[in-house]
Amino acid sequence: MADQAPSVATEAVLKQSEDLPEDMPKIRGYDFNQGVDHRALLRSFLTTGFQASNMGLAIEQINKMIEKRLEPVETGEGSEWKDSNPSLRHTGCTIFLGYTSNLISSGVRESIRYLAEHNMVDVIVSTAGGIEEDLIKCLADTYLGDFSLPGKDLRQRGINRIGNLLVPNTNYCKFEDWLMPILDQMVLEQKTEGTHWTPSKMIHRLGKEINNPASVYYWAYKNDIPVFSPALTDGSLGDMIYFHSYRNPGLVLDIVEDIRKLNSTAVFAKRTGMIILGGGLVKHHISNANLMRNGADYSVFVNTGQEFDGSDSGARPDEAVSWGKIRMDAKPVKVYADATIVFPLLVAETFALHADKFTANKKTD
Amino acid sequence: MADQAPSVATEAVLKQSEDLPEDMPKIRGYDFNQGVDHRALLRSFLTTGFQASNMGLAIEQINKMIEKRLEPVETGEGSEWKDSNPSLRHTGCTIFLGYTSNLISSGVRESIRYLAEHNMVDVIVSTAGGIEEDLIKCLADTYLGDFSLPGKDLRQRGINRIGNLLVPNTNYCKFEDWLMPILDQMVLEQKTEGTHWTPSKMIHRLGKEINNPASVYYWAYKNDIPVFSPALTDGSLGDMIYFHSYRNPGLVLDIVEDIRKLNSTAVFAKRTGMIILGGGLVKHHISNANLMRNGADYSVFVNTGQEFDGSDSGARPDEAVSWGKIRMDAKPVKVYADATIVFPLLVAETFALHADKFTANKKTD
Amino acid sequence: MADQAPSVATEAVLKQSEDLPEDMPKIRGYDFNQGVDHRALLRSFLTTGFQASNMGLAIEQINKMIEKRLEPVETGEGSEWKDSNPSLRHTGCTIFLGYTSNLISSGVRESIRYLAEHNMVDVIVSTAGGIEEDLIKCLADTYLGDFSLPGKDLRQRGINRIGNLLVPNTNYCKFEDWLMPILDQMVLEQKTEGTHWTPSKMIHRLGKEINNPASVYYWAYKNDIPVFSPALTDGSLGDMIYFHSYRNPGLVLDIVEDIRKLNSTAVFAKRTGMIILGGGLVKHHISNANLMRNGADYSVFVNTGQEFDGSDSGARPDEAVSWGKIRMDAKPVKVYADATIVFPLLVAETFALHADKFTANKKTD
Amino acid sequence: MADQAPSVATEAVLKQSEDLPEDMPKIRGYDFNQGVDHRALLRSFLTTGFQASNMGLAIEQINKMIEKRLEPVETGEGSEWKDSNPSLRHTGCTIFLGYTSNLISSGVRESIRYLAEHNMVDVIVSTAGGIEEDLIKCLADTYLGDFSLPGKDLRQRGINRIGNLLVPNTNYCKFEDWLMPILDQMVLEQKTEGTHWTPSKMIHRLGKEINNPASVYYWAYKNDIPVFSPALTDGSLGDMIYFHSYRNPGLVLDIVEDIRKLNSTAVFAKRTGMIILGGGLVKHHISNANLMRNGADYSVFVNTGQEFDGSDSGARPDEAVSWGKIRMDAKPVKVYADATIVFPLLVAETFALHADKFTANKKTD
Repeated sequence: MADQAPSVATEAVLKQSEDLPEDMPKIRGYDFNQGVDHRALLRSFLTTGFQASNMGLAIEQINKMIEKRLEPVETGEGSEWKDSNPSLRHTGCTIFLGYTSNLISSGVRESIRYLAEHNMVDVIVSTAGGIEEDLIKCLADTYLGDFSLPGKDLRQRGINRIGNLLVPNTNYCKFEDWLMPILDQMVLEQKTEGTHWTPSKMIHRLGKEINNPASVYYWAYKNDIPVFSPALTDGSLGDMIYFHSYRNPGLVLDIVEDIRKLNSTAVFAKRTGMIILGGGLVKHHISNANLMRNGADYSVFVNTGQEFDGSDSGARPDEAVSWGKIRMDAKPVKVYADATIVFPLLVAETFALHADKFTANKKTD
Repeated sequence: MADQAPSVATEAVLKQSEDLPEDMPKIRGYDFNQGVDHRALLRSFLTTGFQASNMGLAIEQINKMIEKRLEPVETGEGSEWKDSNPSLRHTGCTIFLGYTSNLISSGVRESIRYLAEHNMVDVIVSTAGGIEEDLIKCLADTYLGDFSLPGKDLRQRGINRIGNLLVPNTNYCKFEDWLMPILDQMVLEQKTEGTHWTPSKMIHRLGKEINNPASVYYWAYKNDIPVFSPALTDGSLGDMIYFHSYRNPGLVLDIVEDIRKLNSTAVFAKRTGMIILGGGLVKHHISNANLMRNGADYSVFVNTGQEFDGSDSGARPDEAVSWGKIRMDAKPVKVYADATIVFPLLVAETFALHADKFTANKKTD
Repeated sequence: MADQAPSVATEAVLKQSEDLPEDMPKIRGYDFNQGVDHRALLRSFLTTGFQASNMGLAIEQINKMIEKRLEPVETGEGSEWKDSNPSLRHTGCTIFLGYTSNLISSGVRESIRYLAEHNMVDVIVSTAGGIEEDLIKCLADTYLGDFSLPGKDLRQRGINRIGNLLVPNTNYCKFEDWLMPILDQMVLEQKTEGTHWTPSKMIHRLGKEINNPASVYYWAYKNDIPVFSPALTDGSLGDMIYFHSYRNPGLVLDIVEDIRKLNSTAVFAKRTGMIILGGGLVKHHISNANLMRNGADYSVFVNTGQEFDGSDSGARPDEAVSWGKIRMDAKPVKVYADATIVFPLLVAETFALHADKFTANKKTD
Repeated sequence: MADQAPSVATEAVLKQSEDLPEDMPKIRGYDFNQGVDHRALLRSFLTTGFQASNMGLAIEQINKMIEKRLEPVETGEGSEWKDSNPSLRHTGCTIFLGYTSNLISSGVRESIRYLAEHNMVDVIVSTAGGIEEDLIKCLADTYLGDFSLPGKDLRQRGINRIGNLLVPNTNYCKFEDWLMPILDQMVLEQKTEGTHWTPSKMIHRLGKEINNPASVYYWAYKNDIPVFSPALTDGSLGDMIYFHSYRNPGLVLDIVEDIRKLNSTAVFAKRTGMIILGGGLVKHHISNANLMRNGADYSVFVNTGQEFDGSDSGARPDEAVSWGKIRMDAKPVKVYADATIVFPLLVAETFALHADKFTANKKTD
């Protein structure tokens, strides 16, 4: 037996390293010996590694959006487009917020409502379910269940499951009662006043009608935050529109006017930030609008999708860079996690931390 | 030291079992000692376990859809709705096919085109990208790249990345050249003939115009297979419609008429089957239409989503049962895998296997 | 056109529900209008849904472990086994903590060290990397990098990547310098004193030798917490043992004695709790030990694995119930998330909250 | 309203591309109009994109391993190490095969058995379950169940669930009956002949004793393929060794000798290939052994793990390049999929295709 380990092995294992830059952050987690200081704990995420670090970077990215958004915008700046689009908002950074339906079903809705209430975001994109579930929650409750409750038994009892949430089907019956007269009125206005309905206009009307400060879209209406949802028929709203089309046909919902309006918010923005929770339509729709300005300046994605199947939902932000949807010099962040854990904590360390400044900013509007 | 192992341990470990039913399938994989017989190998998937078994079940589920679809439909059956909806198709089982954009970008497009060409499916739902990428592929090629190519470098070279695919941006320029005159014509028809455009009507027009047997939508047009895509503005088509709205404004794309048409295909079908590749809008839109008939009879989902984040994309089929989107007594199957591997193999063991019968069926139409 | 929507559709959509139990929790997220109160925010997770709810349940589950563990144990209880296993610990609930190597590389190490330092857990199971990376961190630092840094360039520079962490290869050279004399001494003791080395004995020796309060295993040594790692050769420790076997052969590491010791801790425990971060060996090893007592009483799994591929790593806790590894009446919790985000927050709301009681408990030992 | 779309938008959207290299593969899927030719279909995977392309690349990578392995090895080459390690195998490419326990429980076992039977791989690494489940299958069957069967009911009936597989607990009782006399004999040999037991020696003994051509380890024994499993006590084998330690104590299983043996197979190999199904210990153990030779030449990983949580299981092959576990100039492939679907198809297009050459090669041994 040789008394030396094979040199190929020792050389491979004991290869010397080049020095790393001195300012490179060292990995160090929170030290509980200093007591429980949640803010310090969340600050330590940046040097904790893996998704904790990504969460730390996401906090930084959102705080940059907020800093730019609160910067004063010079007089005259952007006046040209503002004149022709008086309803569009002009700030130092236009913040796009997107989220899938399930997050409105969850308690993340309260975080989103807070952002809309305090005028902290400028454009919202969601799916049909992301609109209607907020309104329905003003009519009846959603409950905590379990992921493994059997579907057949639930259907027999008229209980719908969304992950570990339960929504009694009567909630949708209440929604029908509430919605039908509004649809009647919309058809009437279309016929008598020539109203050209689009999903965003309908959502603002629904926010006005629900008239409830617990609703995201009530505040979007109050604060004139545009809400886009091109496939607004893909949900309970679509069911009701379908039923309504028998007793009072003729409603037209046009998606062309909305795409122009959405793209304009991106094109004419001084800077833009994207905060997108989940994948599918909401992720693509906001990103594609930002292609119109050759890319967003700041981006935070929170989702559980993976890139290996080539889906846009799972794509890393760097794929969006190749398309021009995110600027080439941006530092986009993706946090791989369920948004129910991540988003309330992100809001705590960003928007809620600067709540007083938003209020001030609002006053000077 | 005791000479007996603790009884709590031996009793827990060596607990006797009840007998399992005699007809329960035993796990047994393919035996390569019999040579490589791909069909036998794929049949062995059913008893291989995990997702191979789910793939085996998916083959069975689709073959049931096909069997029912090829059954003769009695004269007069469904005539009522057919009279008022002459364009709707009437078979023993209406098959809904849904897929996300990335699958049209991939070589799965050729499998889908085959199904449309031979009239093997009855309703298609896709996203905007799922429409336009098929048309663009008739104008220029998509290439195989790598998931890790850096976005900044690609953007500088004008190359867009979709997972490990590369699409030169000039492809989209060619698409603009092709599309603009068609949009002009559509606006003209709207103004002069009162054409009420919907996404499904626009897609059929595009299928007619592309006039290329490599295209899915050429065959959907030829075979009169309706194609729904409510958010048709969420993609390159939306970019072009946006640009076009400056030089020739006024196009209206209504999504209300389409939701009525889609729901009707489900409501008046004798039976329905759903084959859904990927998540997001396409999965929800087809499932929700099937709620209108109190649930689909047969269902196959192929995607990589997980239920833990409460997304509809990742939900198990059993969640759809709770909503009435799948029948309570159905045996829906979800295959957890990238559709690029699974779907061509599914087609090989189902539709392609029965190709001659579809042809016969077609002749008797 | 009929003026009634099809009844099959209205009946399916507007089906009435049975009432849900009155005490069922309603979904409600944190209201930031009350200011940022992190503890209240984390309490609101329970009613936020999806993984936030699972995190809320995990906090409850761990607090139950702690409550039981702090209960006084009656005199004489368990004395039989304690007499024959004097090193085994006897509390009202024996807490098993398992974690994969990457978490020691990350800043989660500091949370784990806190638990070991304050004697808050009773048994530890980790992989070889989970042992050596803690020791190496006492010799040199790990840095924050990026998931996308190219491997070839890193290898040329002698920098190893672990996700978005970077470990200079010289760290392993320092580890070799530190470890070789200890291995010499171990071989000497084996030869002269007949020491029967096992992975757990070696880990305690290493904890003693590192003599550094930043180390998990220093505290495991000080507090006599057994640490199991049957595949201790599967890592840098194995590399060094391999090299060392050329210049000073003969070391024997026996895994039989350790499995008996681990199983005994489970068998003779009054109650047990499992906290397992990650999958693979650590998840199976702790769970299998708990089969020896017909199941753990309390269980918290934190990992990102999925069940669809049939792996033990991704299996839901309910699969462990079928094996008798978790009691049939237990309420195990799995949080689907990266532990770097979840675990420090769990510690903040559980062990750190009750830190004073552990200290008291320690004093009365 | 302006009659020109904003130039920032048109320039971003209609950016011209650089030309791509002419030899870049174009995306094109299988054309079922040519009939169902499974081999042609699988060849088309390479240009289908996403994981189908990765599967195509994996086929190429494995075929390269096979080509090199079948090359004649010159006389004298490697003689030095062969002389001192007569049991080690010398071919043009040493193929390491690793797999997790669940794959032996599944029908993938038959594919693995085929490789061992025909001497197509040179080193095997698996977990304890990956050893014992093969042996137990020689004693009793595993059945196809369902992922959602409730654990409590199964435990009451004594049925263990592995994903959608069911294993009656009596199978483990039969295993105990079979194993105990062998353990007695092993202890006897240790005491009387001084046998130094290691996991790999024990596995070969078990393969000899099972004496059943359906067993992977029977063939590994017959063909002298070393099988490594350092944590061999982490499974039913450990349970039995634990029980046995009460009635006949003293067995020693040493993991040091095995790590030296495993590393030597890598160090002295002319070239190496790694085929690793699943993550955890098996992935790390084979990769780490290949670090001893400064990296594997060919690598195929098949698993469902993701990199975002920093786990070795989910790490891309490029992370292993940074460590020197894969050569810097290698073209490693990871297929993101459940191995039950992928691996039988990979074997069909690689090893089984060249079965006759392996036989020839075997004859000249």
